[in-house]
Amino acid sequence: MAKTPKYVYFFGGKKAEGRTDMKNLLGGKGANLAEMINIGLPVPNGFTITTDFCTDYYAGGKKFPKVLKDQVSVALKKVEKNMGAKFGDAKNPLLLSVRSGARASMPGMMDTILNLGLNEVTVEGLIAKTNNPRFAYDSYRRFVSMYGDVVLEMKPEDKHSVDPFEEILEAKKAKKGIELDTDLTAEDLKELVAEFKAAIKKNTGKDFPEDPMEQLWGAVGAVFDSWMNERAIVYRKLNDIPAAWGTAVNIQSMVYGNMGEDSGTGVAFTRDPASGERVFYGEYLFNAQGEDVVAGTRTPHQIVELKKDSPKLYKELDDIKNILEKHYHEMLDIEFTIQQGKLWMLQCRVGKRTGFAAIKIAVDMVREKLITKEEALLRIEPDQLNQLLRPIFDTEQKEKAIKEGKLLAKGLNAGPGAASGKVAFNAVDAEIMAAKGDKVILIRIETSPEDIKGMNASEGILTAKGGMTSHAALVARQMGKVCVAGCGVLNIDYKKQTMTVEGKKLVIKKGDYVSIDGTTGEVIAGNIETKPSEVVQVLVTKELDAKKSAVYKTYKDVMNWADSARTLGVRTNADEPAQCENALAFGAEGIGLTRTEHMFFEGDRIIAIREMILADSEEGRKTALAKLLPHQRGDFEGIFKVMKGKPVTVRFLDPPLHEFLPQEAKDIKVMADTMGISVKQVKDKIASMHEINPMLGFRGCRLGTAYPEITAMQARAILEAACNVASQGIKVFPEIMIPLVSTVAELKGQEAIVREVAAQVFAEKKKKVNYLVGTMIELPRAALTANEIAEVAEFFSFGTNDLTQTTFGLSRDDAGTFLPMYVDKDILPRDPFESLDQNGVGQLVEIGTQKGRSVRENLKVGICGEHGGEPESVEFCHRTGLNYVSCSPFRVPIARLAAARAALKDPKLAVKSADKKPAKKAAVKKAVAKKPAAKKAVAEKPVAKKAAAKKNDKKAVKKNTKK
Amino acid sequence: MAKTPKYVYFFGGKKAEGRTDMKNLLGGKGANLAEMINIGLPVPNGFTITTDFCTDYYAGGKKFPKVLKDQVSVALKKVEKNMGAKFGDAKNPLLLSVRSGARASMPGMMDTILNLGLNEVTVEGLIAKTNNPRFAYDSYRRFVSMYGDVVLEMKPEDKHSVDPFEEILEAKKAKKGIELDTDLTAEDLKELVAEFKAAIKKNTGKDFPEDPMEQLWGAVGAVFDSWMNERAIVYRKLNDIPAAWGTAVNIQSMVYGNMGEDSGTGVAFTRDPASGERVFYGEYLFNAQGEDVVAGTRTPHQIVELKKDSPKLYKELDDIKNILEKHYHEMLDIEFTIQQGKLWMLQCRVGKRTGFAAIKIAVDMVREKLITKEEALLRIEPDQLNQLLRPIFDTEQKEKAIKEGKLLAKGLNAGPGAASGKVAFNAVDAEIMAAKGDKVILIRIETSPEDIKGMNASEGILTAKGGMTSHAALVARQMGKVCVAGCGVLNIDYKKQTMTVEGKKLVIKKGDYVSIDGTTGEVIAGNIETKPSEVVQVLVTKELDAKKSAVYKTYKDVMNWADSARTLGVRTNADEPAQCENALAFGAEGIGLTRTEHMFFEGDRIIAIREMILADSEEGRKTALAKLLPHQRGDFEGIFKVMKGKPVTVRFLDPPLHEFLPQEAKDIKVMADTMGISVKQVKDKIASMHEINPMLGFRGCRLGTAYPEITAMQARAILEAACNVASQGIKVFPEIMIPLVSTVAELKGQEAIVREVAAQVFAEKKKKVNYLVGTMIELPRAALTANEIAEVAEFFSFGTNDLTQTTFGLSRDDAGTFLPMYVDKDILPRDPFESLDQNGVGQLVEIGTQKGRSVRENLKVGICGEHGGEPESVEFCHRTGLNYVSCSPFRVPIARLAAARAALKDPKLAVKSADKKPAKKAAVKKAVAKKPAAKKAVAEKPVAKKAAAKKNDKKAVKKNTKK
Repeated sequence: MAKTPKYVYFFGGKKAEGRTDMKNLLGGKGANLAEMINIGLPVPNGFTITTDFCTDYYAGGKKFPKVLKDQVSVALKKVEKNMGAKFGDAKNPLLLSVRSGARASMPGMMDTILNLGLNEVTVEGLIAKTNNPRFAYDSYRRFVSMYGDVVLEMKPEDKHSVDPFEEILEAKKAKKGIELDTDLTAEDLKELVAEFKAAIKKNTGKDFPEDPMEQLWGAVGAVFDSWMNERAIVYRKLNDIPAAWGTAVNIQSMVYGNMGEDSGTGVAFTRDPASGERVFYGEYLFNAQGEDVVAGTRTPHQIVELKKDSPKLYKELDDIKNILEKHYHEMLDIEFTIQQGKLWMLQCRVGKRTGFAAIKIAVDMVREKLITKEEALLRIEPDQLNQLLRPIFDTEQKEKAIKEGKLLAKGLNAGPGAASGKVAFNAVDAEIMAAKGDKVILIRIETSPEDIKGMNASEGILTAKGGMTSHAALVARQMGKVCVAGCGVLNIDYKKQTMTVEGKKLVIKKGDYVSIDGTTGEVIAGNIETKPSEVVQVLVTKELDAKKSAVYKTYKDVMNWADSARTLGVRTNADEPAQCENALAFGAEGIGLTRTEHMFFEGDRIIAIREMILADSEEGRKTALAKLLPHQRGDFEGIFKVMKGKPVTVRFLDPPLHEFLPQEAKDIKVMADTMGISVKQVKDKIASMHEINPMLGFRGCRLGTAYPEITAMQARAILEAACNVASQGIKVFPEIMIPLVSTVAELKGQEAIVREVAAQVFAEKKKKVNYLVGTMIELPRAALTANEIAEVAEFFSFGTNDLTQTTFGLSRDDAGTFLPMYVDKDILPRDPFESLDQNGVGQLVEIGTQKGRSVRENLKVGICGEHGGEPESVEFCHRTGLNYVSCSPFRVPIARLAAARAALKDPKLAVKSADKKPAKKAAVKKAVAKKPAAKKAVAEKPVAKKAAAKKNDKKAVKKNTKK
Repeated sequence: MAKTPKYVYFFGGKKAEGRTDMKNLLGGKGANLAEMINIGLPVPNGFTITTDFCTDYYAGGKKFPKVLKDQVSVALKKVEKNMGAKFGDAKNPLLLSVRSGARASMPGMMDTILNLGLNEVTVEGLIAKTNNPRFAYDSYRRFVSMYGDVVLEMKPEDKHSVDPFEEILEAKKAKKGIELDTDLTAEDLKELVAEFKAAIKKNTGKDFPEDPMEQLWGAVGAVFDSWMNERAIVYRKLNDIPAAWGTAVNIQSMVYGNMGEDSGTGVAFTRDPASGERVFYGEYLFNAQGEDVVAGTRTPHQIVELKKDSPKLYKELDDIKNILEKHYHEMLDIEFTIQQGKLWMLQCRVGKRTGFAAIKIAVDMVREKLITKEEALLRIEPDQLNQLLRPIFDTEQKEKAIKEGKLLAKGLNAGPGAASGKVAFNAVDAEIMAAKGDKVILIRIETSPEDIKGMNASEGILTAKGGMTSHAALVARQMGKVCVAGCGVLNIDYKKQTMTVEGKKLVIKKGDYVSIDGTTGEVIAGNIETKPSEVVQVLVTKELDAKKSAVYKTYKDVMNWADSARTLGVRTNADEPAQCENALAFGAEGIGLTRTEHMFFEGDRIIAIREMILADSEEGRKTALAKLLPHQRGDFEGIFKVMKGKPVTVRFLDPPLHEFLPQEAKDIKVMADTMGISVKQVKDKIASMHEINPMLGFRGCRLGTAYPEITAMQARAILEAACNVASQGIKVFPEIMIPLVSTVAELKGQEAIVREVAAQVFAEKKKKVNYLVGTMIELPRAALTANEIAEVAEFFSFGTNDLTQTTFGLSRDDAGTFLPMYVDKDILPRDPFESLDQNGVGQLVEIGTQKGRSVRENLKVGICGEHGGEPESVEFCHRTGLNYVSCSPFRVPIARLAAARAALKDPKLAVKSADKKPAKKAAVKKAVAKKPAAKKAVAEKPVAKKAAAKKNDKKAVKKNTKK
């Protein structure tokens, strides 16, 4: 015979049948109610019907079997005994709440019934017990309408239709000439009950059920049914919650905070969810029900005021707070009710918080020895670090500006932080204005490499076109500039030097102030003050002494712990010594990508590079290249000096040559004059170089294959610089990277040139330096033939930006017209340029790594696409066994943390480290496997998509912290 | 003790030690000389030093071990005995030739020494023996200079320097006042010998070796050394011949065709190598040496004339020809010498031939029961079929035009065949001129979809830009039009309506005649008459009765045999009923790709499609789509009617929408008027749709995902057409293909729309038809996630054009600037758009097929890129287990043959068919495994790259057939 299933878990007395780690079976709410009983907190008794039953309920045609009814009956008896009241009793009635409670939090999606058990008989008992007829009838009428709405399905589906009970209530109030519900008398409420019941009879053809047990099973069924209501289904879909999980149902004694001035209710966080400060943070109201605190009709009191109002209750609550934090090792969100002087805990769960608070709380809890460093790392989402790094607007000024209607538009939050400045519509103006000391916001339809200097001179960049990985966004993030991109409602007129916004009359002219928030995407007219974050003040601008910044101390702790935990290297993408210095300050262990082409736009170099491109002969190209050589060598010397022997990966010239060509008539004239040819000849050459799909055109190593002299010049610049710097006693380690290789033959040709030049340079300089020759794997074919390529390449660096473009057949520059729609329609979970497409592009990274190492066991493999700074992608890189990720300087801390979290989650590594380092083993094990309470608390966060979860985070915090 | 290696193989007497299938050991020449001995033909006796010794020679420091010398000595004795002469003998000297002979033919790359054994003593013996002092001294002086040049390395490396012996010879002639070598007397020649020897002494410091054995080893060493000379190394590299193969050396008795009027020499083919006719074809000269036949100083006689000159010799030679063909089952290239009335065979090898001859010979030999049908198929390179299909120029007229200097340029031979016509510089003119009855050559810088109608109206298309798979080339081949593409030296001026050629004065104006040869890429001024091939006259134009065409009969036999052998299906890419009819005539078994967008350019449709694109709302799009529906439905009805139940794969709208937008001011005006909006609005919309990389942009299923109404309209047009045609009692089988899928979610969305429309249409029409919904696999991500996609897709069709573009990161439109250089530099073996890149793109085809079938076992998988008609790619598709290939109509026969050859080469299939069909088994086995002689003969073709081999084919035929 099959074992009788246990469907019902009682909680009450000294010991509950459930525990917090039984969340899958009891739902989050039920598990935590049980846990609070177990640690001795006062919780109104009750019992949970399991999620297993939910599954059986749907499988079995929505029936309640005898085994369930028997178990409910037993549990109910215990509740009656412990609470000293009897369900359906005429004199001392027990009233119940019936609530859903799934494994993952689904706030407001499912149904709830309160005050269950009231009828014409028990209402009299409640009056007798409380001596408060108005309270009793108010509870009664609320119950009847709730029951009618939810169980008897009278709530209109259309949100705009009026609830039938609401209609009756309003009629009553109108008739009485009153406005507030609270002005209704006991008699009024009693009449309402009768009218509500009549409406039920009329609407459903049935009488309102007077039998409490019938009420109970009706309510339980309705709550289970609500698991499959439209809202819940949509929510689950959005948050990737499987329907199969089911919900539990919690049946619990009612307690009332509105039984007079010795009663009350409140919500609180065990620490400040916005700042993370270790202060008891929340609100309460006397003689009120939970909804009154949230509804805003009465102004609730800060929890600290309770100390004055009732020192005893405050102490009791504060003790509970401490017990809870000590037990859960987490910052918690709690609900409580005080019924006639007795405190009851109604709910506890892990509290939502801002990124800033998340970091502070995690670090503080380590200091308080509540959690281990590893646990702390696992609690901080890497992107939350941004809140420690980005400049910020003065909050008051920004809110004021928005109130005044100065919010112009919202674009993509492409480069986080805040920036204000005067508008320039081209790079030259931006430079001129910046040289005068103005802060500049550069506004372009989209940016191109020619704008680099102007971007560098500006505080922030705003574009009308282009996505999260457009040129503007990429360069801005690398430079650490604020950027709002792809703000489609902007009309930018270069000729008139104006910007207008669709649907707005305002005209922004050159020199006007604009403020952009790259963290939110907001574009605001006027000037709003900003300041760099404290961490940046310490590390980059050096305005602030490290010792004076608590924020920096927190940051540093997190980073130190992360570095101890991670195995994945973190490098940076940087093209200039200043960027390299920043990156080192942020902890970069080398350069994963230096783009040589960015150097070509400085000063007169662009003339030389154009001369090289426009030359018709190898001779002409060589002449022009000779002019570039000293510049490039100087650049590399600067970088090598800063990097002091850390590896520096230099990529050879990559973009299509026409990107360097002049567009403006005057620049074309300059070129014609420089080269002694006609303007028409220059124009013809430019026209002849036009490409239909430049992304798939004459670029990367195809340039060096066609014109080996370009490769030779670049190799010479790098190796001469390396020798020169090494001669000064500074260590150097260049890694020369050949871009856009599709077949090993290309690489072989380029490598041969580099080796030949190296031999020449070393002979000339009488100096040798160690260097590597490797390649970017950025085309599917390169990944697929990585075993051939690794015969020549000494390292691989996955260029996942281009690899994503080719694997998806998706142009980063053009995808803006449909990619957002793809993410909206859930065709793609995320923008694949933002977060590595592990299922598709990731396969090529895996194939490439594995095939490469199949012929060169210790092949160094990294990633240098934008994904190198995106936490999920970083974790993927760790799992795939890469040696390092490389990202823009300001994302280095984020990548370090993400790498640490990946290592902590890595079961292989846990075993490995267990073998090697017994000390660490304990910590890791503790973090990953042990501490069920703590671990489960962490898992409390909805098992939803990160993006959605984050949105909810914000909303939840907002809702719960209304001040 | 190690076994003594056998280095020397004697051939002579009745039985040689070697055989024709020992080519790897004895080289081609040695093996065939041995084989001729074995079948009783008269061959001057000799012996072969093996390729194994060559390897040992290089490994052992170029020494001749005793074991070799002993074996040579034994073999030499046999030769002396059989030939009745003695090496070095004063009275009856045996003279030898020493020649190289590698496994693969390397014509002229290595060295040869003739008349070896002559010295001051033996020359007297030769005089006595022949009674011909002039002959003896002529042979002697030739030997000394050859020995000096080759063995003593006196031949100048620089081709332009004068050979020292040549210098002496010229001085002698000048002194004597004569012009021809033949005017030199015996005495003159004797003096020359002395002068040559003096030059050798002066130059090398050593005497010319008088000892015949020293001569012999010197010559053998020199020939082995020549395996590593510069020319040979380059040739091997070009033809992928491994250096490790080594060469054999053949030492053979000399025979002389210049011993008087009863002597002679000749070369011949056993059949006509140009036409394939079964006629003995060749040339001979009496009293001459081999070089005299080739050199052109005397006019040789046709071999048939020998019948008159010497009926006995002719019969002997003709018998030998028949023995050889019967033995080798091949058309052979032979060399012979008649010495004093005795016929000697000097060489036989498989003869090079034109494609036309290859086909005719193969088919004839089947009819003659010399070979099986399967062997015949394996002997015809599929591309050779082109020579049966393409129109051709009148040879005399073309040669005349070229002689007159009318050859303007050479471009890419993009669409084979020949066409003449009046020049039009735009599609509209082409149509107008064609409507007047003119034959038109459309000349464009490059073509676009807008030119389709003009291309269709033209005989041929000539472009200045674009490669083998440019729009012009693709469409031309599909239409069966002649096309010369990418002819960069042309300057086309649309405004002036003229074309000039770089470096030429001629100006071609609209209406002038131009002729283009799409088989050779030639562009010729003026009109040259053309005619369609006989096969096309039978199948397509129906001008010729099948029974009256022998060529057609040959074609039909090959095709019938191919169809019996192949397992791979062959479909066609066709967009119009007329194309479908052609394709069926060529044997297509269905349509693998119908592009709906080509239909959009006809008549007023383009206005409607532009209206759809420019519409700002779903409503507007629907209105425009409603106008397109009847057109599309009509198109599909036409196709379904022709295809009569054969599968028709229709691809939904694929190209970026901006390809359809008007560019010309007047067209823009039309759109503005049609839509009742301003010209500026139309222009703005067009500008807003510009894409940087349209290939990777808003196209394919991205269109239908953004605008589901486009998908719905197209599904409706296809399914309504299918129902309508089915209602007429004609079978239909549409396969609806969703393009450019990168993730299964896209496909799911599109499939749902198709299914919904299908249900509606079937309900409306009260008719159901079978149909499939599948997808193109044309992005790496689709191949990598094919297991997910196959959950939805009922079939896959690999779009290898786009798959090549994305896998390589290579734009077909832009690659022209560097791809030819890549092929030239051997970075890529072939243009990957021409022949599928099996190593890279092929991996994705394999992965996609395997992953797709892992979830849908019987998934139908095809290929519809241009590669579907390229023989090597077709063979790849067979090996990969695809169900079919699809190609342009005129390539269908080529694909059928390629598929047959793939099946015949497939060992799995040989076993399978052996299991099932014992009758066929024998044939296949025969073709593949048995018949060593025949098989080896086939393998005689250089194991070189096909392209190089083909070039050599042409050259060789030309050289050998000089008339």
